[in-house]
Amino acid sequence: MEAQFVNPFLTSLINVLQTMAQLEIQPEKPHLKKSEIAKGDVSGLIGMVGPQTKGSFSVTFDEDMALEIMQRMLGERSESIDEEVTDMVGEITNMVTGGAKRILSEKGFEFEMATPVVVSGKGHTINHKSDGPVIIMPFKSPHGTAFIEICFDH
Amino acid sequence: MEAQFVNPFLTSLINVLQTMAQLEIQPEKPHLKKSEIAKGDVSGLIGMVGPQTKGSFSVTFDEDMALEIMQRMLGERSESIDEEVTDMVGEITNMVTGGAKRILSEKGFEFEMATPVVVSGKGHTINHKSDGPVIIMPFKSPHGTAFIEICFDH
Repeated sequence: MEAQFVNPFLTSLINVLQTMAQLEIQPEKPHLKKSEIAKGDVSGLIGMVGPQTKGSFSVTFDEDMALEIMQRMLGERSESIDEEVTDMVGEITNMVTGGAKRILSEKGFEFEMATPVVVSGKGHTINHKSDGPVIIMPFKSPHGTAFIEICFDH
Repeated sequence: MEAQFVNPFLTSLINVLQTMAQLEIQPEKPHLKKSEIAKGDVSGLIGMVGPQTKGSFSVTFDEDMALEIMQRMLGERSESIDEEVTDMVGEITNMVTGGAKRILSEKGFEFEMATPVVVSGKGHTINHKSDGPVIIMPFKSPHGTAFIEICFDH
């Protein structure tokens, strides 16, 4: 999978968090996920189906970062990852994938999005099961860390 | 969402576990998931996109049941939820959704499947974020419990 498929998701996450939560995040280098184990506390996942390919996208936050985004977006802080936080992560997942979809569509790469699913649980791991390589991109902010993973068949 | 959309997934899971692992599971009553919190240790999730609708499916196992299925399918028992187990859960997710897709297609309800994603983590919860109701179906076996959740927009 080439950078042209990955960068739209990266750009889109940066834009969404900047616009919705006035949160600046620093992307680290995207790389192939091999034996690496990346853990997080709340993740949004979404399936993608297109004429050329299918795949999956996930965005994972540690608890501190999810609660900080929530506070910045809604002006109130949850004590823990409750339904309001998972709703927000589902929305972010939709927005990031929708943003990437628009950019990729202009390049002739089309897909439709399924509905998002949000996973909540301390230190869980996400395993994309497709034929293609999984690209992982970590992000840092003063309020915690996040990462996205993208995978397309072939 | 009517029983005609839910039953194919139920039937398909029973068939897959019977065929692949000679494991008989007892379905409990499917019901609307409202405030209920269902926890598990390993889950397979997949997105679905069709001309009429889109949605998501998940199947969640507790660790004991996942390890038992693994042992019955491959003849060896993992100590914990490792990559072989998550691969197996990804395969089960594909097979169950594929089986349901064939049954629903005969009824004129078409969708394409995205690629599966497997979540691993003690006591995580799954939150389907779509406009439609979420149906949950618990299963019991002598070796642990499992449940599936299905959600379609509208």
